Amino acid sequence: MARTPKKIRSEMGWSNAASITVRGLDLCSGILGKFNLGDFAFLEITGCKPSASQSLVFNAMLGTLVEHGMTPMVIAARLTYLGAPESLQGAVASGILGMGTTFAGTAEGSARLLQEAIKPDTDPAELPTIAEAIVARHVANRVSIPGIGHPVHKPIDPRTRALFKLAEANGLSGRYVALMKLVASEAERVLNKPGQLPVNATGAIGALSSELDIPWRLCRGLAVIGRTIGIVGHLAEELRNPIGHEIWKRAEEESSEHHRT
Amino acid sequence: MARTPKKIRSEMGWSNAASITVRGLDLCSGILGKFNLGDFAFLEITGCKPSASQSLVFNAMLGTLVEHGMTPMVIAARLTYLGAPESLQGAVASGILGMGTTFAGTAEGSARLLQEAIKPDTDPAELPTIAEAIVARHVANRVSIPGIGHPVHKPIDPRTRALFKLAEANGLSGRYVALMKLVASEAERVLNKPGQLPVNATGAIGALSSELDIPWRLCRGLAVIGRTIGIVGHLAEELRNPIGHEIWKRAEEESSEHHRT
Amino acid sequence: MARTPKKIRSEMGWSNAASITVRGLDLCSGILGKFNLGDFAFLEITGCKPSASQSLVFNAMLGTLVEHGMTPMVIAARLTYLGAPESLQGAVASGILGMGTTFAGTAEGSARLLQEAIKPDTDPAELPTIAEAIVARHVANRVSIPGIGHPVHKPIDPRTRALFKLAEANGLSGRYVALMKLVASEAERVLNKPGQLPVNATGAIGALSSELDIPWRLCRGLAVIGRTIGIVGHLAEELRNPIGHEIWKRAEEESSEHHRT
Amino acid sequence: MARTPKKIRSEMGWSNAASITVRGLDLCSGILGKFNLGDFAFLEITGCKPSASQSLVFNAMLGTLVEHGMTPMVIAARLTYLGAPESLQGAVASGILGMGTTFAGTAEGSARLLQEAIKPDTDPAELPTIAEAIVARHVANRVSIPGIGHPVHKPIDPRTRALFKLAEANGLSGRYVALMKLVASEAERVLNKPGQLPVNATGAIGALSSELDIPWRLCRGLAVIGRTIGIVGHLAEELRNPIGHEIWKRAEEESSEHHRT
Repeated sequence: MARTPKKIRSEMGWSNAASITVRGLDLCSGILGKFNLGDFAFLEITGCKPSASQSLVFNAMLGTLVEHGMTPMVIAARLTYLGAPESLQGAVASGILGMGTTFAGTAEGSARLLQEAIKPDTDPAELPTIAEAIVARHVANRVSIPGIGHPVHKPIDPRTRALFKLAEANGLSGRYVALMKLVASEAERVLNKPGQLPVNATGAIGALSSELDIPWRLCRGLAVIGRTIGIVGHLAEELRNPIGHEIWKRAEEESSEHHRT
Repeated sequence: MARTPKKIRSEMGWSNAASITVRGLDLCSGILGKFNLGDFAFLEITGCKPSASQSLVFNAMLGTLVEHGMTPMVIAARLTYLGAPESLQGAVASGILGMGTTFAGTAEGSARLLQEAIKPDTDPAELPTIAEAIVARHVANRVSIPGIGHPVHKPIDPRTRALFKLAEANGLSGRYVALMKLVASEAERVLNKPGQLPVNATGAIGALSSELDIPWRLCRGLAVIGRTIGIVGHLAEELRNPIGHEIWKRAEEESSEHHRT
Repeated sequence: MARTPKKIRSEMGWSNAASITVRGLDLCSGILGKFNLGDFAFLEITGCKPSASQSLVFNAMLGTLVEHGMTPMVIAARLTYLGAPESLQGAVASGILGMGTTFAGTAEGSARLLQEAIKPDTDPAELPTIAEAIVARHVANRVSIPGIGHPVHKPIDPRTRALFKLAEANGLSGRYVALMKLVASEAERVLNKPGQLPVNATGAIGALSSELDIPWRLCRGLAVIGRTIGIVGHLAEELRNPIGHEIWKRAEEESSEHHRT
Repeated sequence: MARTPKKIRSEMGWSNAASITVRGLDLCSGILGKFNLGDFAFLEITGCKPSASQSLVFNAMLGTLVEHGMTPMVIAARLTYLGAPESLQGAVASGILGMGTTFAGTAEGSARLLQEAIKPDTDPAELPTIAEAIVARHVANRVSIPGIGHPVHKPIDPRTRALFKLAEANGLSGRYVALMKLVASEAERVLNKPGQLPVNATGAIGALSSELDIPWRLCRGLAVIGRTIGIVGHLAEELRNPIGHEIWKRAEEESSEHHRT
């Protein structure tokens, strides 16, 4: 049985000798010098130019996960750079591969939770009941609720406070943000952990992505964009102040010293 | 002989329960909502907040390579997403791994060429002689000059025109840009290829990175940041309109059809 | 509250000027020339030298997924090689990143299914009842059962037949293999799909890994080892007969031709 | 000007419902249970079944780089696994991305050196003169000679001794091995570093790949195959004895402690 071929068609971009077109706009006259980088990312992902409010909030969302110090991801990137300094793209790739379930997965998970719970006609008055059901379901299944809790940032994650404040000031704090907050406070109540389960940065990103109609399957991509910038920043520091070699040698020596004595 | 341990120290970022500090600024009160994404990248890489002029030019530089249609990189990312949709970070990594010598390497190469040729005390009057020497050396060694020529965008690469115009309007067009242009015109003259060897987009990025004091070893990282955004954009389209599967099946069928008949 | 540091210690390998020790064996006198590559992988993963039977079966398991023609993974690797031929490691990495839930994930999933179902004291007579419960649970949850069914290889996956025959001839076909077969036949019966849900290659690998006491979390690694070899094979062909460029240009042209007319 | 399409054709493998064919052999009846994993890699790369001698030497070559203790590559893989344990393929990819110029690049470089120096009609008597010219050229250009020297393994790299002995016993020690040895001794003489510049493991692999007619551009792939196995081995240990977390926390604490006091 023969396969029916399907037409390959893309609306992302195309070019000829004199121009490059991106999502219907001329790159050189319509985007460069006019869109900042976060706005360009919004155009790529949604197909639309962001409003001033959307621009402010979306740039802040992407910026939230850029830098968090000496994470496993940036250490992996520094170690890879040590072996392949001629292939910086490989060091960056090595770093973003650590953006899995532990970190970026929770942005995806919280967005999914919210997008599956709220329908176009969901009345805001129903949100407390929805939050109760979400918490009850996770507690019954003994699984953690994505987007709440942080080992360090408590009782409040300062990134969430900043993002939610910005969203509210820009008219982008709607039902998804409200539900995310309700889930966190309900979880603290049910699990008797006051001040222990704030909405964390990935929960805030999940909620705001939902406000912007970004599908949950893409939320991890927002985290990856931000962290790519942070990894390049760490590689810039590694050039000035190499520490990958030191981390390697210490681990190598300690891990085998019981064989040497 | 024992190794002398070295202190591990980073200035990129650190955090405590209530705050995250990035390059000396408070992330939540000083960056989110105040820095657009390109400005944040500038801070990460250089340690400084960009001026208004630097912000405009740097955001445009990073935006230049975001989108160029159905490149090998975005096809690789779409094919990887097909096999591992739960790991979007892997699909992005798969795509950026194609940012090697063919593409991003020329941004690095042109920046290196310029940064090695111009010293702090180089007089602009010397630039034509320097350009002649650069072209002569590459011609003698039979190697191509990074940053000039493009299979499609000629006699002018429209991205270069846009970037150089923006740089000039913002007071960021100095000796490096001048030298890059001289190298291109000298190469067209010596090789007798008028209109065939314009400064291309990676040459423009290499020149402007040099104007901004960004070391050539990092230029590939700028390309990677931009293209990461483009790859996430293509994955967003792949979710709405999957084409990876079709590309795969066609290649699979055609590549083995001589065995089936 | 200070963290309690933990000792870093590894038993994998260590070296001095005159020797390299791997899992307690001298690499140069005890492994090279004596262990074939699959046996070495067995040593790395389990810490033991395989018996002759284990060697035969384990080499076959690793070989099963090496080559399956023009898969999405090898196309991604070829496209990445196009952009970064100087970094073959990046092309290989790009390819293996597609070994996610769709492919390798099912080896992991079937091994998990079996390892969670069979306890040390499970009587073989209980296996049919266990298989019924597994199928009933998956059907009730409307999720597919890992390790059974294949779009092309039916009513029997020839790789499974070969692997299970080899395992039986070598005394390695025990309760896990038996349960995997029972799950497949029970699923065909319950879902009324005779000849449609054979144990597939990843199901066979999941079952045989379990027979060899390899934890299910590592099964995906076995698939990755095999496919890495296949990807290098395809890159060897790409050097002799480049096709990545053609796949790219066709996709690029077709995807944007509606903009050109 | 329209592009002339090219036929896409591959000889690697293809399949139908009942069989998988690999390089002309039936996978299930002709390879599984008959080829060990190294032999299968030889078939993939060269298209031929190895002779008994080739099998012994090639399996040893691939085994040489499997394990070298706590290298930067395996630490990167362990750190990536920490963030994305559900995507083991990403952790492996993260590790092999460090196989760049520092490590695997020298296998490639030494093979290239030898393959460019020896022509089909090169008389073995000419080899000392060729070695002198190679060393003189590298010394004049102030670049290091790939394949010789090692920070730890000197005056002899034990892996080289084992590989060359095996090759000689199997009739695979020809002009390439002879030239590699001559280059090392000439370099020690010219640079006055007796016992400091032995042929190292990657030099031995480069020489033996050349004896087996494997193009130098693929040698890095042999290193990647071996190291992939080693990385999976380390991830198996990480499951039993996690150390990635400890390496991370120590680096994080130390790198920012100057900010806390």
